Amino acid sequence: MRVSLLLFTLFCAAAADSTWEEKFRAIPDPHNMREAMQRMSAHPHHVGSPYDKDNAEWLLAKLKSWGLDARIENFDVLFPTPNQRLVEMIEPVKFTARLAEPPVAADPTSNQTAEQLPVYNAYSADGEITAPLVYVNYGVPADYERLARLGVSVRGAIVIARYGASWRGIKPKVAAEHGAVGCIIYSDPRDDGYYVNDVFPEGPERPRDGAQRGSVMDMVLYPGDPLTPGIGATPEAKRLQIPEAKTITRIPVLPMSYGDAQPLLAAMKGPVAPPEWRGALPITYHVGPGPAKVHMKLKFNWDIKRLYNVIVRIPGSQYPDEWVIRGNHHDAWVNGASDPLSGAVAELEEMRAFAELLKQGWKPKRTIIYAFWDGEEPGLLGSTEWAEAHAEDLQKHAVMYLNSDSNGRGFLQAEGSHTLENFLNGVIKDISDPETRLTVWKRLQLRDLERAGADRRRELRTRPDLRIGALGSGSDYTAFLDHLGIASLNLGYGGEGGGGGVYHSVYDDFYWYTHFADTDFVYGRALAQTAGTAVMRMADADLLPFQFSDFADTVRNYIDELKRLEAGQRTQTEETNREIDEGVFQAAADPRLPYHPPEKNPPPPHLNFAPLENGIDALTRAAQRYDAARKNAAASSVKAVNARLIASERDLTDPAGLPGRPWFRHLIYAPGFYTGYGVKTLPGVREAIEQKRWQEADEQIQRAGAVLTKEADLLEEAAAALAGR
Amino acid sequence: MRVSLLLFTLFCAAAADSTWEEKFRAIPDPHNMREAMQRMSAHPHHVGSPYDKDNAEWLLAKLKSWGLDARIENFDVLFPTPNQRLVEMIEPVKFTARLAEPPVAADPTSNQTAEQLPVYNAYSADGEITAPLVYVNYGVPADYERLARLGVSVRGAIVIARYGASWRGIKPKVAAEHGAVGCIIYSDPRDDGYYVNDVFPEGPERPRDGAQRGSVMDMVLYPGDPLTPGIGATPEAKRLQIPEAKTITRIPVLPMSYGDAQPLLAAMKGPVAPPEWRGALPITYHVGPGPAKVHMKLKFNWDIKRLYNVIVRIPGSQYPDEWVIRGNHHDAWVNGASDPLSGAVAELEEMRAFAELLKQGWKPKRTIIYAFWDGEEPGLLGSTEWAEAHAEDLQKHAVMYLNSDSNGRGFLQAEGSHTLENFLNGVIKDISDPETRLTVWKRLQLRDLERAGADRRRELRTRPDLRIGALGSGSDYTAFLDHLGIASLNLGYGGEGGGGGVYHSVYDDFYWYTHFADTDFVYGRALAQTAGTAVMRMADADLLPFQFSDFADTVRNYIDELKRLEAGQRTQTEETNREIDEGVFQAAADPRLPYHPPEKNPPPPHLNFAPLENGIDALTRAAQRYDAARKNAAASSVKAVNARLIASERDLTDPAGLPGRPWFRHLIYAPGFYTGYGVKTLPGVREAIEQKRWQEADEQIQRAGAVLTKEADLLEEAAAALAGR
Repeated sequence: MRVSLLLFTLFCAAAADSTWEEKFRAIPDPHNMREAMQRMSAHPHHVGSPYDKDNAEWLLAKLKSWGLDARIENFDVLFPTPNQRLVEMIEPVKFTARLAEPPVAADPTSNQTAEQLPVYNAYSADGEITAPLVYVNYGVPADYERLARLGVSVRGAIVIARYGASWRGIKPKVAAEHGAVGCIIYSDPRDDGYYVNDVFPEGPERPRDGAQRGSVMDMVLYPGDPLTPGIGATPEAKRLQIPEAKTITRIPVLPMSYGDAQPLLAAMKGPVAPPEWRGALPITYHVGPGPAKVHMKLKFNWDIKRLYNVIVRIPGSQYPDEWVIRGNHHDAWVNGASDPLSGAVAELEEMRAFAELLKQGWKPKRTIIYAFWDGEEPGLLGSTEWAEAHAEDLQKHAVMYLNSDSNGRGFLQAEGSHTLENFLNGVIKDISDPETRLTVWKRLQLRDLERAGADRRRELRTRPDLRIGALGSGSDYTAFLDHLGIASLNLGYGGEGGGGGVYHSVYDDFYWYTHFADTDFVYGRALAQTAGTAVMRMADADLLPFQFSDFADTVRNYIDELKRLEAGQRTQTEETNREIDEGVFQAAADPRLPYHPPEKNPPPPHLNFAPLENGIDALTRAAQRYDAARKNAAASSVKAVNARLIASERDLTDPAGLPGRPWFRHLIYAPGFYTGYGVKTLPGVREAIEQKRWQEADEQIQRAGAVLTKEADLLEEAAAALAGR
Repeated sequence: MRVSLLLFTLFCAAAADSTWEEKFRAIPDPHNMREAMQRMSAHPHHVGSPYDKDNAEWLLAKLKSWGLDARIENFDVLFPTPNQRLVEMIEPVKFTARLAEPPVAADPTSNQTAEQLPVYNAYSADGEITAPLVYVNYGVPADYERLARLGVSVRGAIVIARYGASWRGIKPKVAAEHGAVGCIIYSDPRDDGYYVNDVFPEGPERPRDGAQRGSVMDMVLYPGDPLTPGIGATPEAKRLQIPEAKTITRIPVLPMSYGDAQPLLAAMKGPVAPPEWRGALPITYHVGPGPAKVHMKLKFNWDIKRLYNVIVRIPGSQYPDEWVIRGNHHDAWVNGASDPLSGAVAELEEMRAFAELLKQGWKPKRTIIYAFWDGEEPGLLGSTEWAEAHAEDLQKHAVMYLNSDSNGRGFLQAEGSHTLENFLNGVIKDISDPETRLTVWKRLQLRDLERAGADRRRELRTRPDLRIGALGSGSDYTAFLDHLGIASLNLGYGGEGGGGGVYHSVYDDFYWYTHFADTDFVYGRALAQTAGTAVMRMADADLLPFQFSDFADTVRNYIDELKRLEAGQRTQTEETNREIDEGVFQAAADPRLPYHPPEKNPPPPHLNFAPLENGIDALTRAAQRYDAARKNAAASSVKAVNARLIASERDLTDPAGLPGRPWFRHLIYAPGFYTGYGVKTLPGVREAIEQKRWQEADEQIQRAGAVLTKEADLLEEAAAALAGR
């Protein structure tokens, strides 16, 4: 009797919520988003610029005018800007790189030259060097192995790498590890230019003189202010000296357009680049070294700048100490219409809609915190400093962090904690894709079916939940998930219309966005509906909608991947060793070209996967028990169980962090040490295997197995509590 | 007693042969090949040119001077040459294509403009048209399916296709099938230009104004003179009228350089070309139609020209009625150093070496015929007319036809009848790779190991014979193998150094070859050694070295492929139908771009593969029996068994030929109706399945099964005869 009565109560609450949700989803208005984007992108608004502060104050006033409790929270961070930038080829022909993006007549904000940050990579070291060029493709570790086969070393050279394949900050790091003295990163039209589509202003893609600014700090050590790792960059914080900051690059780095890069690449000789290294410039790609010789001079102003995070708090009516957090940054590299305003204006409409609902009597059960972050572009500064400053509170109170960033036309792109996978699937079944009128969930399933092979199709047609990706890095969820262990989601629409063609350039502005991206802001509305619905549903749930079977299933897949990775490495090493004995590499190589065959390696030992296997088995059982118990939850247990659910992501972290980078504490997800944005799941284990550190791999298996076991214990307790035991 | 004595005799013969072979292999001299190439490539020597005749007469004199029985055998064939060529863009901008290859200062023969054939496609129809352009990628059937998805039709349009993926003659054929009124074929630098390597004269690849001449006759119907299908084009032959000749294209076709193509492609709009359609020009590739509109005018001189085949005969001492035939063409599109002289000069050195051995007392047991073909370039004219003129004799006497064409540095590329696979493996174990000093066999095995996946590596390490490819078309073996059923091989070295970058252009000349290809002619010597050894070994064998287990194993693989093809088509059709019902294609497509989803098709019926299965089982058993019997052959049986071996390839043909193209009689190998050069094995069955003609597929399975059974019977008889029963 008691149980069925309580279930009735829960059901009524859900019904009520869904009415509020429907009201909510009717409010976001494309017209407002368009206006907000136009206002906020009217001038360059990078960290430290007048318009960055102006936007924050405008947001604050707007939010307050809606009756919301908003305030600005400041931090003071190291943010270098260019003082001197020179790249010139001195041999075999003279050429000086332009390093500037020309105004485009049709585009009214592209001529704000005085306010624009020049083309540069933030947190590059100062330096002046003259050295021959070596082309290193994307500049990831595998590219250097390939160079070694060609007998080409980058020691003492300036590498020229193309954007793509890894986060940009990886490129100078790996180059320096291999002895390079400088690094140029350029946008090849193969990845980012006419190869993809027509270029701006005729089309959405990067024009020949467009270049990609961006941070190169070594964010996989720690993001945020380089001088205050682990603590908030408040005025009184104890700061490192600049030379102590490990996240500043060891060598000078500068980005350039393909207009600037073409003469450099065309002047190179040496082996022809392997086919998969070749871009879309109308030249033969050679790897060098030289004869192109480049003189490069970089000097920065190493200033402390003020950040303006705009923070809104809607207090919870029933569980005020449980916080649902949502964020999107507002700072940009230049005018930043797509990155980040396309996401920020959706977030702003969520705020307007919530203000409206509050006036109508909606009282969210939990506290909702909305953040408009500053300083994301240079290194997730605003979110990281805020998360570090409020770490203790957040670890106690945070239920979920939901992030967005750039938004566009197309399909939902969702990544996050897999304990939220089932929750998110529920949300997107209630959101309508604005152009096809299918639900967002249905369109995603059908699109995935179109791309899938037979095995994956079978899963797509039978698994109740669509899979979401794991989070690496590249936006403001990083400190929440990886440092604090807060279950996180990152959402955005995209994949159709103009993509990343003007990313981090002066052309990412209102003109570009309203001609080539989500021109009528209907996907802006869809993002506001999706994120807002998720926030409301999480804030208003009695029992928090975490689910663990999807998580356990996902982690089991990761473990299977690791076993295949380990076995594959063994087979591959044995095969390579055998082929070296047989003389395969010498025989297959052109005797007239330089070629250095690989050397023999000891085959990897067998690792003890039992701790992971035992952990995942326990977790799977506990998840089944918990998910079954959810369906018959005793209301009296909810508060205690919710506390455990809030802790559930925290339990996946380890205070000692990952090997060599203790700031990263999550043992299931982390940005890869050599990928940057790209995630490594079970990162301690995976990177140890990839980098052939076998003893460390065994140790990391133990640690990862332990957090799975701990999570299983938590779920067993939660299941028991739910059942009223 | 008798058996062991005979085995001793056979062994002595083999030993003696191997001494002669070793003597032979010491003779070919790179210096001579260099001189012959320089002489023969000194002027353009296409069909009908003075220097084509001059080369033939020079060869004749040379061969006679060595004491060989050589003569010239003439045929008179239709060979059109350009009278008028015009391609101009009239909208949206004016542009007239240059259609000419400029002389290069460093290259002394590139300026023989008056003697050069202009850039054109032989056997294009005359015509004048004005129409919008559509870009069709490689212009193969799958490309038109893709265009249909984009809602683009070529009806009434001029298609612009890039060279590659199929034989060039397929492109206008498929374009005309889809309603196009004209066809331009250009060399994209992605496949053939700076993307690959530095361009001529700095490097080996095609420069911006270099273009590929070539035949577009519909050679998969029948090669050779269009006016005399199936018969020799002798003066008295009954000829078709030109309009009756089915192998002349239905629409005008012209090739062009990427320098000429770039303005046309850059002026196109419409959907952006799919990623795999994009070349390496610095433009965004669009498919059209238009707005580029092109006016094209082509008029040809439809003249009869004389061919000069140079034929040498070395009479057999013991089996004069058994002929071992070897050929390489001598005509070129322009100066033709690589194509064909690199192969022809090796062949000439084989002749010199044989003349030498004959003087030393060597008496080949079988008759050896060497041919230097004319008119290969326009359509295998010289070899086809000769084979048709001598069809009756050849079907009686020919043991093997061994072909070569262009030759270069690198690895042996061998294709042929799989009854000769074991034989060829034996030959190349005795040839030394000139740059690595490994045997040619060993280097090939090791190179294949480097490229192979795990399954293939296992086979490469255990199967005694390396596999050879099957023959499609594209050189002079076609009439011998496909029309007459003569076991054939095609050999050439290549894969390193300058590849096909100047193919069929004025730059394929002595300067290019001696700077970028087999510059010191050591692979020319290797080709002479390989082909000459094969000819000698075949001519001097007592029991002809045909082997059938490799053949049976290969055909079984083909049958397995066909079963997978049929099953895959069924699965694919069912999946596509299901996805159409689910709405997958509409959901995955961008609603703002044109997209036409595929239509439902009935799933293919199950075919009756039993006739092929029974045929291959019988063949496998018989091959094992025969190959075992070879090891204990009774000498008295050899002559009778040899007669069966000579017939063994004939038995794989069917006088009715393939569906729709009776000239092609071989039921195991044929050039694909929609690939041209590319082989289709078990072609009747495979093409019926690919083209969804299910009843025909079942009929063709019957026919192919029947020839396998017939071959099995022949082998059973041969095995019994060998055993002296």
